[in-house]
Amino acid sequence: MKIDVLSLFPGMFDGVLNESIIGKAQERDLLDIQVTDFRPYSDDVKHHTVDDYPYGGGEGMLLKPQPLFAAMADLDQKRPGPKRVILLDPAGTPFTQSVAQDLSKSDHLVFICGHYEGYDERIRELVTDEISLGDYVLTGGELGAMVIIDTTVRLLPGVLGNDQSAANDSFATGLLEYPQYTRPADFEGRKVPDVLISGNHQKIDQWRLKQAIKRTYLRRPDLLDKMKLTREQQDLLWEIQDELKGID
Amino acid sequence: MKIDVLSLFPGMFDGVLNESIIGKAQERDLLDIQVTDFRPYSDDVKHHTVDDYPYGGGEGMLLKPQPLFAAMADLDQKRPGPKRVILLDPAGTPFTQSVAQDLSKSDHLVFICGHYEGYDERIRELVTDEISLGDYVLTGGELGAMVIIDTTVRLLPGVLGNDQSAANDSFATGLLEYPQYTRPADFEGRKVPDVLISGNHQKIDQWRLKQAIKRTYLRRPDLLDKMKLTREQQDLLWEIQDELKGID
Repeated sequence: MKIDVLSLFPGMFDGVLNESIIGKAQERDLLDIQVTDFRPYSDDVKHHTVDDYPYGGGEGMLLKPQPLFAAMADLDQKRPGPKRVILLDPAGTPFTQSVAQDLSKSDHLVFICGHYEGYDERIRELVTDEISLGDYVLTGGELGAMVIIDTTVRLLPGVLGNDQSAANDSFATGLLEYPQYTRPADFEGRKVPDVLISGNHQKIDQWRLKQAIKRTYLRRPDLLDKMKLTREQQDLLWEIQDELKGID
Repeated sequence: MKIDVLSLFPGMFDGVLNESIIGKAQERDLLDIQVTDFRPYSDDVKHHTVDDYPYGGGEGMLLKPQPLFAAMADLDQKRPGPKRVILLDPAGTPFTQSVAQDLSKSDHLVFICGHYEGYDERIRELVTDEISLGDYVLTGGELGAMVIIDTTVRLLPGVLGNDQSAANDSFATGLLEYPQYTRPADFEGRKVPDVLISGNHQKIDQWRLKQAIKRTYLRRPDLLDKMKLTREQQDLLWEIQDELKGID
């Protein structure tokens, strides 16, 4: 996969590009990522201005269209071919695991990272996807791009050490993950549930499924509403509801 | 505000701590942030192991409880006082702007960043808040911590250049932001709406409110459902609905 990031603060990516899964994917030649500062594309050759005051008044500065249009034109020439061009914006489609799965099928992603108070509206013409990380406001698009890149890149075949890993994650199944335990079996009086040490794998699987359903029911019932439960899952959900009512 | 981050990959924070609003807040002495590698707290003095296989089988490795319990105990001694301790986890409370507002009132935040397949369940005993960035799976908690820190720190008084800036953001008002435009008035044939150049500030304010409602209605009707609309907003929403039906 090719990824290009257009940002005024390319240095923000330094640590993440080297240390994370993104770094590993590059080492394995599964990812070719380039971060480009679009400030030099400003046609203001003296001050390299990229922002200006909003028409109609208001606080803060907006990104001007010209530098980003020029940076995209240059990118299309240097790295031709079809691209998904993603604008990070609170007004975009909320980012979810299924958006990541969709993006992971693309050969070339481009991220436009805004900063300051916002973008000139005309910048939206450059993009194919407007994505919001969640219902909160970040200072710029950089962290949003990093989150989307991390979430997407780890879905590419060969990036995670074990191809099974991503399939068991929360949201991949529609449920939150069941509680997990590792050594020691007794940590300062806090014990691992007996079933996990029983060696009975059928019982372990059933316990885990029930715990995943229970956690999802208690914390995120909205996720259950979106799922089509299997017969086994539905039976477990009823069992949990009865137990919580104290009936059993 | 004091912030501590416990991470196995402290280098991931390098760029972000220096270049972003987080860097500026530190320069202005509004933020004291420390990133600590908790690997040295492992009681395995030879290999500094922090992860181990899950009880009951399964893919991947889990964070062991001991290193994080030791790191937190040390932090409590070195930086005493009440703390909000945040675990980044897909099963946590979904992060929103109001969670950020709540966190911004705290004097000391601690972020525990997991990695690998997950945490030993007993680690949750250390935390006061479990937060999920959104319904997607990241490789580790580091990017989640950065997003929450950025969103929260920019709400602290004095961090943004202009105290008005955060109040007009998307979600601060409950609505998505209206379209914004800056110079030039005509960019390669793409023109700024006349009203914004009219100088009539009452008309501009009304246009902006209507556009904000329209964008929210078209893209995120769920946000409108959560709001208590003023009389003016409700009238504009009806007007928009009529226009979209072609009635007017």
